[in-house]
Order: sequence, then C-alpha cells, then structure tokens
Amino acid sequence: MALKNIVVLVGGVGGVKLAHGLAQILPPENLTVIVNTGDDFWHYGLRVCPDLDTVMYTLAGLVDKTNGWGIADDSRAMLAALRRYGEDPWFGLGDQDLATHLLRTQMLHAGQRLSEVTAALTSRLGILHPVLPMTDAPVRTMLDTVEYGELEFQTYFVRYRWQPTVKSIRLDCIEQASVSPEARAALERADAILIGPSNPWLSIAPILAVPGMSQLILSRNVPRVAVSPIVQGQAVKGPAAKLMAELNYDVSAQAVGEYYGDIITGFVYDERDTALNLNHKQVTSFDTIMIRDEDRVVLARKILHWIEE
Amino acid sequence: MALKNIVVLVGGVGGVKLAHGLAQILPPENLTVIVNTGDDFWHYGLRVCPDLDTVMYTLAGLVDKTNGWGIADDSRAMLAALRRYGEDPWFGLGDQDLATHLLRTQMLHAGQRLSEVTAALTSRLGILHPVLPMTDAPVRTMLDTVEYGELEFQTYFVRYRWQPTVKSIRLDCIEQASVSPEARAALERADAILIGPSNPWLSIAPILAVPGMSQLILSRNVPRVAVSPIVQGQAVKGPAAKLMAELNYDVSAQAVGEYYGDIITGFVYDERDTALNLNHKQVTSFDTIMIRDEDRVVLARKILHWIEE
Repeated sequence: MALKNIVVLVGGVGGVKLAHGLAQILPPENLTVIVNTGDDFWHYGLRVCPDLDTVMYTLAGLVDKTNGWGIADDSRAMLAALRRYGEDPWFGLGDQDLATHLLRTQMLHAGQRLSEVTAALTSRLGILHPVLPMTDAPVRTMLDTVEYGELEFQTYFVRYRWQPTVKSIRLDCIEQASVSPEARAALERADAILIGPSNPWLSIAPILAVPGMSQLILSRNVPRVAVSPIVQGQAVKGPAAKLMAELNYDVSAQAVGEYYGDIITGFVYDERDTALNLNHKQVTSFDTIMIRDEDRVVLARKILHWIEE
Repeated sequence: MALKNIVVLVGGVGGVKLAHGLAQILPPENLTVIVNTGDDFWHYGLRVCPDLDTVMYTLAGLVDKTNGWGIADDSRAMLAALRRYGEDPWFGLGDQDLATHLLRTQMLHAGQRLSEVTAALTSRLGILHPVLPMTDAPVRTMLDTVEYGELEFQTYFVRYRWQPTVKSIRLDCIEQASVSPEARAALERADAILIGPSNPWLSIAPILAVPGMSQLILSRNVPRVAVSPIVQGQAVKGPAAKLMAELNYDVSAQAVGEYYGDIITGFVYDERDTALNLNHKQVTSFDTIMIRDEDRVVLARKILHWIEE
C-alpha cells in the first residue's frame, strides 16, 4: 500500500523526536501532528502549552537540543527579576520563550481557539506542517500523589521533578472537551495513525480521552501504530517507567502495547528488548533510541516502510 | 515653619529626579509620591505603567541611569523573539522589566486596585516611601496630531519619538476617574505640595485633571510649589518645549508658572533664566538641572529650605 496522509499523536520530548523525523521526510500536506494539551497551564497570567511549544520549537529548529525543550541559548533575566520581587518561580520561562506565551495569551484572550492560535504561531515561525492541539478546550492532567495529594501536571512534573508517588490520574474538564474540526479532518483522511514514543499515561492518554477521539481513531480502518517509550524496562526519558510501577503495571514494552489495546493495530518496540507478542497485532522492533537528528529520520523511515509493507 | 509631610506630583524622568532627591532626605512617613498614569497602556496583553515604573526603578536603585527609565543592564531577548514571530515591537520591554508587567497585570486581573498593586510591587522592591498612582481608574492621554490624527500617548511618545505636531490633548475616560483614598489622605495631611519638573501638559495636567484633584489641592492652605521643566527656553529632556510651541505658548519658565495658575503658590525656575514675575506668588531660582545623583538631593534640600522660610 502507498501511505499518503500520516497523523502522529505526541506529547513532549520523546514523541516530538519522531514527529521531527517524520516532518523531514513527509511534505506538509501529508503529515499532521496532534499534540497533548493536558500539560497546559496558567503561569504568571500567561497560557503556557509545554508540549505544543516543544513541537513548535523543534520543528522550527529553535529547540534547545540539550534539554529537548525550550529555545536554544535562551536567557532567564525575567525569572531573575521575579526573584527580586520575592517570587520563587519554578517553571523555566525563558526570555525568548516569553514571546510565545505573550502572543498566545493575547490571541486566546481575543477569542481565538487554541488551534487557530497554534496555526498562527507555527506559520509565523515558518513551520509548514500542521500542528494541532488535541482539543481547543482547557483540560488539566491532575495527579493524585501520596506525598502532596492532587497536583496539577506541571507542579508534579517540574516543581517536584516527578518525584511524588502517583496513585491515580484524572483529567480535569475532559468531559467538556471535544475533537477540534482540524483534528477530526486530519484523522478522517489519515492513511496511518502513529502514536509517538511519548508517555502513554501522561501524554497519550489525555489525547485519547478527548470525547470522540478514541471512537474516531477506532473507526479508521488504517494501520494504527504506537512506538514504545519503554526500552529494557526503562524510560528513555522522564517518569514513564516510575509511573508504570506506581500504577502497578509491569514496566515493559509489552505492558505498553497491551495498555493501548484496540486503539493500535501495530506496535514498534526496541530491538534491544526481547521479542514480544500482542494478540492479533503486528509487532516489530527497531532501534528506537533517537540520539542524533539523523536517528529520527531513520526511525521514521523504517516505521513508514514497515507499515507500507 | 516646620515642614513635615510632603507630597510631590511627578510624571516620568524629570520629576522623578526631584522625587528621588526628596526620598533621600525625608523619611518614608514624610514623603508621598503621586504619579501620572495617563501614559499607562496595554501592550502584548500586559499593563505597562511607564511613569510608575520609572519612579519604582529609581527609588529602588535599579534604574538605567543613562536612559533615566528601565532597569540597568536589562536585556531584550523577548523583543528579539517577538521579531522572529514577525512582530514589530516599538516599546522597549526589557526582560527584567517584564517581571514587573507580568506581576502587575496578574494582580490587576485578580481585582486589585492599581494603588494596591503599586504598594505591593514597591514594598517587594524594598521601597519604603509611598508611591501612589494619580487614580486607580484607567485614563489615557490622547494627542491629536497633524500627521496621524489622534494617538495614544506611548504611540506618540515612543513609537513616533514625539515628532508629530500636537494640536490638542484629551484625557480619555478622565470623567470616570477619582482621587484614590490613599492619594486623598496624603494630600489632606500634606504640609507642602510640590510639582516636579515634569512636563506640565503631558505629565502634570492628567494628575490635576482627575475629578476632585485640583479642588483638593486648592483647598489645602499650604505652600504649593512647582519646579519649571523649561530652562532658557528649552526642555531639559523630552517634548515639553516642542509641545509648548505647538500649543501656542511662549516657551519659557514664565509661561509654565502662568499655566499652573492658582494651583501653585510658589514657583522655582532655573538660575540660568532671567528673573520672572508671577502675580501674588513666591518665586525663586536655583540650579534645577540635576545631572548627578547628588544634584537631586541638593535641589530637594534647597526647595524645602526655601518653603520653610
């Protein structure tokens, strides 16, 4: 089969690497990136969308490659000045980064939908591939923790460096959310739907939980392939492995594949892992650890070839 | 007579120098600075109060001494990032400066009055002297210009570098403004009211135009003394002289003194000027050009001594 239109669902750093690889081999009209917005929050009056920002900065070639997020060589003068006012800012708002948040906040206050705002920002950064928030509605990923009770995502993730023990996850306001017209159209014309190696519980589950999203994906009789973020029982980056253990999952690619259930028809795990088996699903293994920029393209190409065959 | 409580009315740079001189010789309980807010505006969703900021940064010792406004050694990374988004930002929002605007905007959106917000910000910067906006209501100084029609103050002042020819000045929304309780209390207990060498038409007139303000000042039977911003027919800084000519005033300290009319009982002009005469008013001349920090203290001390005698 010849794949034409690809949709990839991603959260932050891990999934974005795959999206970046895909963007380098697929023209803008053939790739749409749908991004988790459960991490979005208000901070000092600004609407901050960390996953959208990571996608934007990566696709625009602006990203800080060491961190995988934020803008390269950004400064922190505003944060230093906040400290002079006695504030204790715990979220890394870079000075260049602030321009994004200021423009976004202003457009949202003017009544634009987040999809429209994101289209404007990406276009102005020269990004040609559509980047879509999972929904235009505000949804908050909340983590119930042993140590601090329920925490907003960024408080858990950045302020407490994902060290609290998670008991459960709740998506605040998810019932008021809906799939945007843009995301619906992209999924309806997709020839394949990919799920990047992002955190299944924190990054992908919020996307799939948008009312109508899972039904829409399940209704598409096309290859639906997830890439494991777990390699040899460890997360490539971030809290995925720790969280799986806390939620009483086996920390393995196998458990990730099982977690996605019917949403996927195929699963890519890392070639370092032992062979796994998911009933009625196609599975394959590649080198999924993307260190260099070229690794992203290589993995994206391998996945597309595998799906085509 | 022994002066105890001093109130000084100021706009931006010129008047602030005198306020700074006064703050160095008067304890916090004896000096209140009332500041023009007609220059305030919304910019990229932030509430920017240039005159309040200049007072705050000067009294906190943070000000950029070369410009007389902004924070010393501030960077402009956010502005550069806005340009990457295709914006053409014309107002000098420094990165450190942004912390002020973000905190202020957040507090205003939370329902605090500008007087309360300013008290919080100044206190957190270690400023002990009360700094009060002329009113809590938003007032906009609008300039009708030959070249561009009516312009908001900062558009005239910063974007067009006060080059347009002014036909008239209007204070938008002034009728909804009122003297704040804090400003009223300060003026009611003042033993002397000073008007700094700020632009009489652009910085002081908006303060005096707040409904109730002129009546309150006129009702105080205390020395009310203005300092001329015009020296030898020129403005020490900014558009005062150019504006006076455009509004068909004689460009002189004498004309400034006459403009203030009954609001003042005394007038200080520069010793470089020829003697002037204002009917029924006390006049004196000092070196009013404050180059060094010490000059501010010297002038403040001379004015207070003159009033006491």
